[in-house]
Amino acid sequence: MLPRGRPRAMGAAALLLLLLLLGFLLFGGDLGCERRKQGGRAGAPGCFPGPLMPRVPPDGRLRRAAALDGDPGAGPGDHNRSDCGPPPPRPSKCELLHVAIVCAGHNSSRDVITLVKSMLFYRKNPLHLHLVTDAVARNILEMLFHTWMVPAVRVSFYNAEELKSQVSWIPNKHYSGLYGLMKLVLPSALPAELAHVIVLDTDVTFASDISELWALFAHFSDTQAIGLVENQSDWYLGNLWKNHRPWPALGRGFNTGVILLRLDRLRQAGWEQMWRLTARRELLTLPATSLADQDIFNAVIKEHPGLVQPLPCVWNVQLSDHTLAERCYSAASDLKVIHWNSPKKLQVKNKHVEFFRNFYLTFLEYDGNLLRRELFGCPSQPPPGAEQLQQALAQLDEEDPCFEFRQQQLTVHRVHVTFLPHEPPPPRPHDVTLVAQLSMDRLQMLEALCRHWPGPMSLALYLTDAEAQQFLHFIESSPVLAARQDVAYHVVYREGPLYPVNQLRNVALAQALTPYVFLSDIDFLPAYSLYDYLRASIEQLGLGSQRKAALVVPAFETLHYRFSFPHSKVELLALLDVGALYTFRYHEWPRGHAPTDYARWREAQAPYRVQWAADYEPYVVVPRDCPRYDPRFVGFGWNKVAHIVELDAQEYELLVLPEAFTIHLPHAPSLDISRFRSSPTYRDCLQALKDEFHQDLSRHHGAAALKYLPALQQPQSPARG
Amino acid sequence: MLPRGRPRAMGAAALLLLLLLLGFLLFGGDLGCERRKQGGRAGAPGCFPGPLMPRVPPDGRLRRAAALDGDPGAGPGDHNRSDCGPPPPRPSKCELLHVAIVCAGHNSSRDVITLVKSMLFYRKNPLHLHLVTDAVARNILEMLFHTWMVPAVRVSFYNAEELKSQVSWIPNKHYSGLYGLMKLVLPSALPAELAHVIVLDTDVTFASDISELWALFAHFSDTQAIGLVENQSDWYLGNLWKNHRPWPALGRGFNTGVILLRLDRLRQAGWEQMWRLTARRELLTLPATSLADQDIFNAVIKEHPGLVQPLPCVWNVQLSDHTLAERCYSAASDLKVIHWNSPKKLQVKNKHVEFFRNFYLTFLEYDGNLLRRELFGCPSQPPPGAEQLQQALAQLDEEDPCFEFRQQQLTVHRVHVTFLPHEPPPPRPHDVTLVAQLSMDRLQMLEALCRHWPGPMSLALYLTDAEAQQFLHFIESSPVLAARQDVAYHVVYREGPLYPVNQLRNVALAQALTPYVFLSDIDFLPAYSLYDYLRASIEQLGLGSQRKAALVVPAFETLHYRFSFPHSKVELLALLDVGALYTFRYHEWPRGHAPTDYARWREAQAPYRVQWAADYEPYVVVPRDCPRYDPRFVGFGWNKVAHIVELDAQEYELLVLPEAFTIHLPHAPSLDISRFRSSPTYRDCLQALKDEFHQDLSRHHGAAALKYLPALQQPQSPARG
Repeated sequence: MLPRGRPRAMGAAALLLLLLLLGFLLFGGDLGCERRKQGGRAGAPGCFPGPLMPRVPPDGRLRRAAALDGDPGAGPGDHNRSDCGPPPPRPSKCELLHVAIVCAGHNSSRDVITLVKSMLFYRKNPLHLHLVTDAVARNILEMLFHTWMVPAVRVSFYNAEELKSQVSWIPNKHYSGLYGLMKLVLPSALPAELAHVIVLDTDVTFASDISELWALFAHFSDTQAIGLVENQSDWYLGNLWKNHRPWPALGRGFNTGVILLRLDRLRQAGWEQMWRLTARRELLTLPATSLADQDIFNAVIKEHPGLVQPLPCVWNVQLSDHTLAERCYSAASDLKVIHWNSPKKLQVKNKHVEFFRNFYLTFLEYDGNLLRRELFGCPSQPPPGAEQLQQALAQLDEEDPCFEFRQQQLTVHRVHVTFLPHEPPPPRPHDVTLVAQLSMDRLQMLEALCRHWPGPMSLALYLTDAEAQQFLHFIESSPVLAARQDVAYHVVYREGPLYPVNQLRNVALAQALTPYVFLSDIDFLPAYSLYDYLRASIEQLGLGSQRKAALVVPAFETLHYRFSFPHSKVELLALLDVGALYTFRYHEWPRGHAPTDYARWREAQAPYRVQWAADYEPYVVVPRDCPRYDPRFVGFGWNKVAHIVELDAQEYELLVLPEAFTIHLPHAPSLDISRFRSSPTYRDCLQALKDEFHQDLSRHHGAAALKYLPALQQPQSPARG
Repeated sequence: MLPRGRPRAMGAAALLLLLLLLGFLLFGGDLGCERRKQGGRAGAPGCFPGPLMPRVPPDGRLRRAAALDGDPGAGPGDHNRSDCGPPPPRPSKCELLHVAIVCAGHNSSRDVITLVKSMLFYRKNPLHLHLVTDAVARNILEMLFHTWMVPAVRVSFYNAEELKSQVSWIPNKHYSGLYGLMKLVLPSALPAELAHVIVLDTDVTFASDISELWALFAHFSDTQAIGLVENQSDWYLGNLWKNHRPWPALGRGFNTGVILLRLDRLRQAGWEQMWRLTARRELLTLPATSLADQDIFNAVIKEHPGLVQPLPCVWNVQLSDHTLAERCYSAASDLKVIHWNSPKKLQVKNKHVEFFRNFYLTFLEYDGNLLRRELFGCPSQPPPGAEQLQQALAQLDEEDPCFEFRQQQLTVHRVHVTFLPHEPPPPRPHDVTLVAQLSMDRLQMLEALCRHWPGPMSLALYLTDAEAQQFLHFIESSPVLAARQDVAYHVVYREGPLYPVNQLRNVALAQALTPYVFLSDIDFLPAYSLYDYLRASIEQLGLGSQRKAALVVPAFETLHYRFSFPHSKVELLALLDVGALYTFRYHEWPRGHAPTDYARWREAQAPYRVQWAADYEPYVVVPRDCPRYDPRFVGFGWNKVAHIVELDAQEYELLVLPEAFTIHLPHAPSLDISRFRSSPTYRDCLQALKDEFHQDLSRHHGAAALKYLPALQQPQSPARG
């Protein structure tokens, strides 16, 4: 795997070159300005002062000294005060800026989100993101942006699969793979009416307002079409090692991590033919691209130097090992965009890497909810659903004692599905996914759960952005968890004081990809054999196809936090008899599982039907298209009970499986439950929710809902979860 | 309690005034610029365009329309493009900027930290903070900045108590109290050589680089000495309600939340006499200041309008209910400093409050560790200890399998002592403080602990910045916890992968204020009577004074997470006999407490002496000046054992108390412990730490340390905590 621009200590030859080129320096700046004043023309540089800019004279020779080897004291911040006239006009306050990003797979999707957070933090303009994605990234990012609801951000998706054929003929050795080449086809892939676009790699971080970058379009001469920053490594100089033969480039060449594209001009100039011709010709003598699109961009630019407008290097500060970037910026205040363009990413080593890493971590851990802030001053169409949400929130009465409940119910949580790499299970007709939800305080359950359930799982995690990173490290450092590609983790970002338990369950349920789901809770460990047994039972009973039923998995509990898990029903019954196990909530709330009829289960050889009764909340296996959980139940209480009521109302049979069992492990009460158990308003509000639930139930099921009325009116035990 | 500038719907009279004043608008801007071009003079405004600036003509009448009632479309962002000439020069890259803040008490100290975080996030210059503090704030902030180790930030403290007498004669009704008046004495309190300073209220948040604010000093005419933003409320107009008689001011007056002070000029102009004379005169007819220093600043300015340089309103966007601030900024991009100047703070209601709140929360929850980033490009003296730390870190070998341990040991954690209001216990000769440490996953223990221990506690909490806010809400929403002023919570900010258990214990221990400490763990509940019993035992035994001893509190455990706590030793023994309780770690690690000799304890009527043995780790009561915990033990294992070894080596007697007991409650293993129990390197590293511990022990205690050698060489049980 090759980095884009792996640098090396400069050799004597390069030093000589440097000295020679220094001669151009003092002169170059003024010349550039003169040219600009006389009106731009093909190949003329923009009006930047000398020290930081590579200059491309019409003959195509690059005066590289100007870019990297100049006086580091003269930062780009000085541009605006040069004698070259006024600074580039900022885009008008509410001008829509367009940004294109190619993104494929789970890991790149996480990267894009960090990039977007940094962009949103500093942006002051409405943005339109053009995302070229594979199916995985689209699934993730579509849901993410839909639930993020950031004002004044529009997102369009483009199918990378459809574009593949246009670049798949190019042999490529870069780690970005085929997707690394896709920036080449943006002029044809993006809408014909789109004239300007900023193109970004997924591994860049903004340290400034993107409108400043956009403003550099104004520097383009009439024929320039591509704005780029020079490479901050010696890769393209071809002297890094023996037989190192890079693609052709002007001097150090340009880095394509940040590109300003005049799409209109490229289309006019016949870009599609242009890059294909160059690539084909070079591939006659070169075996493959090493740095993906960047090789081809550079080869085209070497042939057509008039196309390129060099950009100040601070707009793409390239962090490879021993990068030359330091010559570009002289102080932290100069940095505009940081580019983690080494395959080592954050593990790269260079002088200021701690600074850069801190900067990156800022956005990695930044609470994305805070970026929902309105871009006031710029009228923009609100994100889909935002207006109704605002209206609903505005109608809430802050004096209502249940205000927190109402507000929590209306909260739209940001959702990042398949946060980690995930292989969907192969289609199998009776396969079943374990569905559960958790927060940080239950992470330690995951390893045990993986040992007990060898099948697919869909887990929703309620986390802050910073916790999501801790979670990532937790998984990566666990060999057991890292090895499981069939466990899908969906991060639902925290917002509000109450735990949105049913919203979490619904996220996990919606993402289950097998025809059946086992609706469990995170503090239960299923019997080792349960996964196989459930699949066999589903097949035997014709669940879903012949029979509309919910299969009940009887629940037990241990009060000891060290205990040896039974390997069979026989062992389980023995433990039950000696009091090492109990039926679940036997002491505090037997009603929750009484209808399972444990006495009958002891003897049962075949599945048996049981009747719904008040407060029944068994763990069940149902077809994936089962009713959703009622999201109005936030916090603790009645969340599963309501779901079982709904199943019963929809006439699901309740069938207890004779060999199935699952065991609850003890844990300290969670923070949320401790906080609200003591609150008297809490129970009043829960009763209000139950009343409303019953009203809705009556609306849907008519007189049949009457059956549930007494159950809904009896007080809830305060100990219930 | 009165806000600074509580606004109200404008009456008809104000509307008329507004229309009249609008007449000045178009004319005002140009005039200002003309004056500037002719050279500044007393009372002439700086070179700001009209719409946003109050203008003070030499005769002292304030053309207020220019400030608040103008065209909101013309933001201060436009200044740089006005015809007024070049923008104010930014301070040179590495110029040291001075900031003064008055801060008193626990809550203001938290506020200051959020303010400082926002300032550091955007700053690009070295800063010198001048903090005028009471003893509480000094204790907190001195430790905080010492452990924060932010490069290129110097902090000086000034004793507010010594300044009190200069302002205590002024009757004041404002909620900020006496400290609210202290800004008046800054010219004499700050060092005589200090000429320029920015003065900030604790409730402001930066949204931009403070050097832009500093640059406004360049706008001062030769005689101007105070830069201020106009009030964004009608308070000083005196028409808010019947008999509302505010202090005299020019029009709406100025807000003193953000001040640019030319200290040199104020001293020259005889500021001390000036404000005292004015205040004395006004107090002849007014009963007291309503808005603290602000009333007096305004009264002085009304008399000496030539002193003031009005600043663009975006540098002090005042968020009271129904603020007029909206007329100041037209878009989010205009905002520079946000001022939460309503007593309602974040609960204030106005059109864009959600935006402002998000902005504030950004810094409230921001990981302060990330601000340790170097201000490269500006050579600056490293914070005390930083160089040695860097050297020690640089000497670590990243390939060492124990690298994480070594790094964690060297980590300097930011420490915020007494995060919440705290009353030190009254001095009592035998008083004892319970000392423990915890992280988020044990918060639910606090209420029970408070019920069991009515005495003082000193607790160290290992939290992220965001978790510290959750913790704050947790305490505030618990009546039990909110009522306890004798529990001191010290936040130690998370950094690194290993739990720095002994560093946390040492923070809590160092902050204990009673002569004795009970060194406990957070998952233990002491006997209800333990606090009284310990004090009586300390007195009887002459602990500390006559006898160098550690009093052992025997430890028990329950494996059930619901259980009824014994009210006496008799009840405890009964539970022990029926197997509802065990001696602590009876099943997994009896050695840890075997020397306590539980059989003897059953019968004991008086304290008895026991001998140290390998792996003994009892919970003990010792004088506050006992040895510290060894901070090299990070993560889990050997942390308490090493402390008991040190006590024994220092010849503390171990005395078991016959009526004392404490009971461990069950809990799921913490994330940290699960993560490392499985790691084989973990135990190797622990052994390496133990070896080094013993080397140090030998160095200090010579041959006497030989006694501990076998204990240190035997392998640690993997189950140990």
